Amino acid sequence: MAATSESGILFVLSGPSGAGKGTVCKALMESLPDMCLSISVTTRPPRPGEQHGVNYFFKTKAQFEAMIANDDLLEWAVVFDHYYGTPREFVETKLREGHDVLLEIDIQGAMQVKQRHPNGVFIFLIPPSATELEARILGRGTESEASFRQRFGAARHELQQMQHYDYVVVNDVVAAACARIQAIITAEHCSVSRNLHLLTEW
Amino acid sequence: MAATSESGILFVLSGPSGAGKGTVCKALMESLPDMCLSISVTTRPPRPGEQHGVNYFFKTKAQFEAMIANDDLLEWAVVFDHYYGTPREFVETKLREGHDVLLEIDIQGAMQVKQRHPNGVFIFLIPPSATELEARILGRGTESEASFRQRFGAARHELQQMQHYDYVVVNDVVAAACARIQAIITAEHCSVSRNLHLLTEW
Repeated sequence: MAATSESGILFVLSGPSGAGKGTVCKALMESLPDMCLSISVTTRPPRPGEQHGVNYFFKTKAQFEAMIANDDLLEWAVVFDHYYGTPREFVETKLREGHDVLLEIDIQGAMQVKQRHPNGVFIFLIPPSATELEARILGRGTESEASFRQRFGAARHELQQMQHYDYVVVNDVVAAACARIQAIITAEHCSVSRNLHLLTEW
Repeated sequence: MAATSESGILFVLSGPSGAGKGTVCKALMESLPDMCLSISVTTRPPRPGEQHGVNYFFKTKAQFEAMIANDDLLEWAVVFDHYYGTPREFVETKLREGHDVLLEIDIQGAMQVKQRHPNGVFIFLIPPSATELEARILGRGTESEASFRQRFGAARHELQQMQHYDYVVVNDVVAAACARIQAIITAEHCSVSRNLHLLTEW
């Protein structure tokens, strides 16, 4: 097992629906070749263009419930009648091997991960304004009216969860949001609490 | 008075003698046009090339002691028989106005600043190795043998103070150390505890 000093850092990118987590996560991964991205499991049907093993692992409800029973999930939640979860083994193996891991998950999931991995770095991505949030949810074009109302109301409520996170990043421009997150990653690697091994190396 | 959310952040760059604080600070200021650099007061004689009001404010012992008596110093210390201190008003005015302020000070001073400004960001700069530290102190060429031994011994002891800081930055290459510190500055501006005003703006 790797020494604590050599363990990777778990970064959790989360935030309200419509903040642009998926877009920012994709851009971030393109600029971070050493970051390991965790792929979530879900029982919701694929949206147009989504691929199994790339965007999600798509599972049946029975398969998902078996994973819950086996403690194979780091976190899981029911959102809009579908299960979402994070396979545990991939994340914990990569961290032990010293790799950084990025999770892009919803707020319920992030709070569960925080219980198991309190040393993780929790980043809350928010849209620049309520008006912009509304436009983004509508612009996605995949939502019914009822679904939109549910998402928008939930998003405003979810914003209050910011206080449980370490960092808040305003997603005004994707490249700027990515640059801030990259700075957070660099800074966290410099935190004294993650570098106490230096005290014994002198 | 500016709201808390608009206050600047106090960054304290410190570390053992020979870590390269001065060089890194100078390079950092060249790339951070909005950062306000605090200039220290000292009673030690200027080294060749040092200018009053640029590197330090050079004062007599009597002048310095009057500043102590008037509580005009944010921190002060005696190092190698000379007084060093940080004028308080400049720092606190700039912070109130919403500007970030950078202090480049020794460890004794940093720990005093931490008592008055616990929300400051304390960055510990270290040389990449003990061997490199020795070479740097000798290479400065301004030290007597006795002064060298005193500095080198103190530096190894001072390294243990790292645990009282927020970040540790290895000064292997000046540009790389500066990039890490710039990332820390960006990350701190994204910290949730410095952005709680966002909760009420939605």
